[in-house]
Amino acid sequence: MDVYKKRVELSLEEYVEGVRSNNRAVLARAITLVESNAARHFSMAQDVLTSVIPQTGNSIRIGITGVPGAGKSTFIEAFGLKLAEQGHRVAVLAVDPSSSLSQGSILGDKTRMDQLSRHPNAFVRPSPAGGNLGGVARKTRETLLLCEAAGYDIIMVETVGVGQSEVTVRSMVDCFIVLMLTGAGDELQGMKKGIMEMVDIMLINKADGTNRQAAEQAKVEFKRMFHMLPSVTEGWETEIDTVSALTGRGISECWETIERFHQHMKNTQQFELRRKEQATNWFHSLLEEQILKRFYDYPFIKSQLPDVKKDVLLGKSSATRAVSLLLQEYEQKIYNN
Amino acid sequence: MDVYKKRVELSLEEYVEGVRSNNRAVLARAITLVESNAARHFSMAQDVLTSVIPQTGNSIRIGITGVPGAGKSTFIEAFGLKLAEQGHRVAVLAVDPSSSLSQGSILGDKTRMDQLSRHPNAFVRPSPAGGNLGGVARKTRETLLLCEAAGYDIIMVETVGVGQSEVTVRSMVDCFIVLMLTGAGDELQGMKKGIMEMVDIMLINKADGTNRQAAEQAKVEFKRMFHMLPSVTEGWETEIDTVSALTGRGISECWETIERFHQHMKNTQQFELRRKEQATNWFHSLLEEQILKRFYDYPFIKSQLPDVKKDVLLGKSSATRAVSLLLQEYEQKIYNN
Repeated sequence: MDVYKKRVELSLEEYVEGVRSNNRAVLARAITLVESNAARHFSMAQDVLTSVIPQTGNSIRIGITGVPGAGKSTFIEAFGLKLAEQGHRVAVLAVDPSSSLSQGSILGDKTRMDQLSRHPNAFVRPSPAGGNLGGVARKTRETLLLCEAAGYDIIMVETVGVGQSEVTVRSMVDCFIVLMLTGAGDELQGMKKGIMEMVDIMLINKADGTNRQAAEQAKVEFKRMFHMLPSVTEGWETEIDTVSALTGRGISECWETIERFHQHMKNTQQFELRRKEQATNWFHSLLEEQILKRFYDYPFIKSQLPDVKKDVLLGKSSATRAVSLLLQEYEQKIYNN
Repeated sequence: MDVYKKRVELSLEEYVEGVRSNNRAVLARAITLVESNAARHFSMAQDVLTSVIPQTGNSIRIGITGVPGAGKSTFIEAFGLKLAEQGHRVAVLAVDPSSSLSQGSILGDKTRMDQLSRHPNAFVRPSPAGGNLGGVARKTRETLLLCEAAGYDIIMVETVGVGQSEVTVRSMVDCFIVLMLTGAGDELQGMKKGIMEMVDIMLINKADGTNRQAAEQAKVEFKRMFHMLPSVTEGWETEIDTVSALTGRGISECWETIERFHQHMKNTQQFELRRKEQATNWFHSLLEEQILKRFYDYPFIKSQLPDVKKDVLLGKSSATRAVSLLLQEYEQKIYNN
């Protein structure tokens, strides 16, 4: 088995068999392949993915967001350990497009989730390094599929609660959880607008010691708020619970809530629907992202766009005319290439 | 002046002078030009727009949304009349991408806003007929500019509260208002998720007679909700007021709130910033929409895409590989055209 740790290239069969039998070293290498930006890895990565597709789809996909300081890592570690000890197989991934730039980004610090990482039933993978949201999202989605093929039945995707990445993560999971702090209200101002209306479950974390009472009060206030907001999942009013990742209080109940949510999704046929939407959404976002990238990367566009945009912002041209002229010149270029 | 009503073609100067001097017949014809899908109108429409750009930007742009039945038209008529009588010049536009399909769409019924339409200080224009959201949005934005050039200082853009069009309207206005009914909570379920987090002012309409008390109660509840949601405009907590378009109660106060909001935006430099965002946003959405449209309209893509997508949804291919192959074939086609 040690052969897989060496630097020899694996064959397609070795990758596929290794992933299917949850050989962790092979799984890690397959993910590295998927994350690689090298052209020579692309074809093999897609061969592996296509081969394992029949084994995918059998996990509960959970998105977890929250402002920095809400205790996401601590919660995920405590929650993941509890599930792993119950016999679940738990994978933890992250979407953090800025991780190449910012220090201390989510899951970037190897010492975090230390206990969970070492549990035989768990697999923790940091956010793919660098790149824009689109690239990171593709890599995370494909990693999610590889983990499913390796038999992980619970996949958590972590994201920071401050950017466009929440919409992306929401679009790849079945259940979306936001982690809050006890002091309700103010910290929400730091969150991206619109997140509250994508949430299936809210967990008020750090509900321990002297914080306990404030957390219960916040729960009542958030309950009122969600009662007035439209639900993202039909027939499911956002559930709010208080937890303490520190003492473990409420952690088991989280899983019960997720299971109840999952059952509701299944019973109302929303599960199948959301999975279909996930797939369609993925396909179109991949496609459109590539089309736009190719356009913006085209040398003529790269050189012309800043001036064209400036003219529009200065009121020298209507936006419609500027766009129309730019595209006309662009098409002449590519057709006469 | 009657010459403008005849079917003779106007010159660029006639259009520009007519719009600038608020000749309503010329303004209406310029809008028709902008709304035209005929290629021969395109160039003239953009010439007119480019010429009047220096006269644009001097209105307060207000977006108004709300579920069907919230009384948007009645409110806009009462509110618009009040402003017009005070000497303001008020234009009312609409964004309704489905208006070609659905009967009784917003502003589609010529008999609606009858009084306001006839007021010399007001100009009411229904949603451009047909087309997708992108097309309708472009036409509405350009109509907004023409109205500004014609000296309208308050422009209201109406939209139905159930679709993607709210995000579009939010991106073209300074102040975004949602109209609610007195019975709080339930009717929100019919609204598109995320709208509540884009709102600067909420008006609880039909707060008259026996509804009055329920409306005041709803106001208290919504106030609590907004206190917990992040603000879309920094330093401005969504203002909630009860109004009655029927009795006129609260209508004058609406304008005071908008003026206060406007002042806050100016004081905090958010006004300039939002206007700049509006322009940048417009440019990029126009550009990307055209690029994607050209791609999806390309005959090879039109014929291949359904099968490629089907393969992905059936798990026969990874999405990434399918997209990559499709784009490779597409580029070979266009470069060897």
